[in-house]
Amino acid sequence: MILNRGYVHGGDIYSRPVTLDFSANVNPFGAPEAVKAAVREAAERLAAYPDPYCGPLREKLAQANGLERDDILCGNGAAELIYQFAAALKPRRALLPVPSFADYEGALAAAGCAPRFYPLRRENGFRLRSEILSAIDGQTDLLLLCSPNNPTGCSVPPELLLQILDRCRKTGTWLFLDECFWELTDEDKAFSLADQLRAGDRVFLLRAFTKAYGMAGLRLGYGICKNRELLEGMCRFSQPWNVSTPAQAAGLAALNCPDWPRRARELLRAEKPFLYNGLTALGLGVLPGDANFLFFTGAPALHGRLRERGVLIRDCANYRGLRPGDCRIAVGTREANEALLKAMEEALHV
Amino acid sequence: MILNRGYVHGGDIYSRPVTLDFSANVNPFGAPEAVKAAVREAAERLAAYPDPYCGPLREKLAQANGLERDDILCGNGAAELIYQFAAALKPRRALLPVPSFADYEGALAAAGCAPRFYPLRRENGFRLRSEILSAIDGQTDLLLLCSPNNPTGCSVPPELLLQILDRCRKTGTWLFLDECFWELTDEDKAFSLADQLRAGDRVFLLRAFTKAYGMAGLRLGYGICKNRELLEGMCRFSQPWNVSTPAQAAGLAALNCPDWPRRARELLRAEKPFLYNGLTALGLGVLPGDANFLFFTGAPALHGRLRERGVLIRDCANYRGLRPGDCRIAVGTREANEALLKAMEEALHV
Repeated sequence: MILNRGYVHGGDIYSRPVTLDFSANVNPFGAPEAVKAAVREAAERLAAYPDPYCGPLREKLAQANGLERDDILCGNGAAELIYQFAAALKPRRALLPVPSFADYEGALAAAGCAPRFYPLRRENGFRLRSEILSAIDGQTDLLLLCSPNNPTGCSVPPELLLQILDRCRKTGTWLFLDECFWELTDEDKAFSLADQLRAGDRVFLLRAFTKAYGMAGLRLGYGICKNRELLEGMCRFSQPWNVSTPAQAAGLAALNCPDWPRRARELLRAEKPFLYNGLTALGLGVLPGDANFLFFTGAPALHGRLRERGVLIRDCANYRGLRPGDCRIAVGTREANEALLKAMEEALHV
Repeated sequence: MILNRGYVHGGDIYSRPVTLDFSANVNPFGAPEAVKAAVREAAERLAAYPDPYCGPLREKLAQANGLERDDILCGNGAAELIYQFAAALKPRRALLPVPSFADYEGALAAAGCAPRFYPLRRENGFRLRSEILSAIDGQTDLLLLCSPNNPTGCSVPPELLLQILDRCRKTGTWLFLDECFWELTDEDKAFSLADQLRAGDRVFLLRAFTKAYGMAGLRLGYGICKNRELLEGMCRFSQPWNVSTPAQAAGLAALNCPDWPRRARELLRAEKPFLYNGLTALGLGVLPGDANFLFFTGAPALHGRLRERGVLIRDCANYRGLRPGDCRIAVGTREANEALLKAMEEALHV
């Protein structure tokens, strides 16, 4: 929660009226019916405390990912786990490629760490390149990555990710890899490090139900890590009941719907080119995003003019390394995307 | 969440089968229907992120408590706020009367603070007495209190609480007062400091929906504090979306049911003496608790024998300052209380 100002993310449909929200990157189909039903059913058993072990949910996540139950830590949304991770690790020299999700920096600051920023270059389409390897130099104790990255949508190529993992192992550097968009990534680009982990590895993978299962309002994320000491340390920075009963029930229900993210990927395969072409035709510079959102650069006034029309997109000017006119939109259904393009056309020609 | 061991609280109905749970101190009637309905309704709008300002909920809480909206901070259960408070304040010398709720110590430890313990004496029924005033000496920067205290059920008398407030103001000492059981406290003992606060006061009051509205599984608590700097600091130690959409909706619904805790207090007025007498007749030493639970001292084997019968009570041996045989039970409906006394009688005569 924040008191009354300083909210820097998308999805604020509360401060002013919003008819169409393209500012939050969730599954265009929302939540599956089974997830909604699980929440309705959980409404009947609110009086008991939630399972502090998240037992059945972690069992099922372990099965689904070929892991042990104790390789998994659940959180009140993936965002909470970022804070727990930073608090438990207390890095001294963290390396953070930017632009990226703002709460990495917030969580590091809360843990007393001012990261070194690694600027991703606009002329490279903000893609991470192999130059990063030489920055993993043994002086750095933590590298934070997000793939596909938020807000640019660029994923780190698998071969580079494996080189980074290797370099981190050799230098004893911790790797925090945010895979929250993994399930909504184009299948030829989707790649997770989950299969690569060895016991004791200094690697933490962040996952979310938020995006893939349209559950942002319910809060459920998890971390994958084969370093027991870190996970036990993280537990000391949160209460035992941080994952609510409805969230645990919904997570179990979501895991019974593996087709839900697949359906979204099918939609994205058609709608991303449609939106990409539509935005390009409006004269905007669009990045070819690998996940369920697109990043583009346009008129600095666009966000405000759309807002007046009840259409919310993510103004990215407050991301470190970005500038006014940089925007992010979630890809929606055809109907929503057509409405967005129409509103943008009007807004640009005012 | 905790990985696989070290859970020290009541309410663990997950590790082994439980038929009757007296180990968690929630409203004997559970959650009101309006709260359940609000959660069911919220199940239809899970895809959007929760309101990061908790706007309507804080407005309503402010009205209900004669406060400003910005005097209030909501959390993922009251427990999260304890961790945020300790992280933001980073006390050096905290004074903690014991026995009390274990997560005060956990949150202080996470913030790097080893508190000084102030032992409440068994021969005084674990009541806080005016000797505490001389311990608020200007060397201490934080005093943590819980009234009625968990697990003993003893409340701090209003006149002593006002003296403590005065002494804290004079010495610049922070006062953290957990009022989570306030709404389920006998009306002649219930007293909150909320009406006493002045702008800038170094006082943080902790409140919960958990207990009074039977919402432990949903997670919703709030803090009351007129020190803006502290509340802004606390926000920096948590994500913007820590309070879920169902929890915010349920909180609003609960505030429309002020009779719900009152009905519970009426039940407690009859059932506390019934249980007290029943426990005493079994030869147990019972404290006259002011809230919705009773503390007693009995046979160390009792908890385990009840557990074998599917009846869960809170074994308090792991509280600092307590010993095997010390137990806490939530007061239930007559039917539940009769079942508990019957099971205890059998367990004691094995």
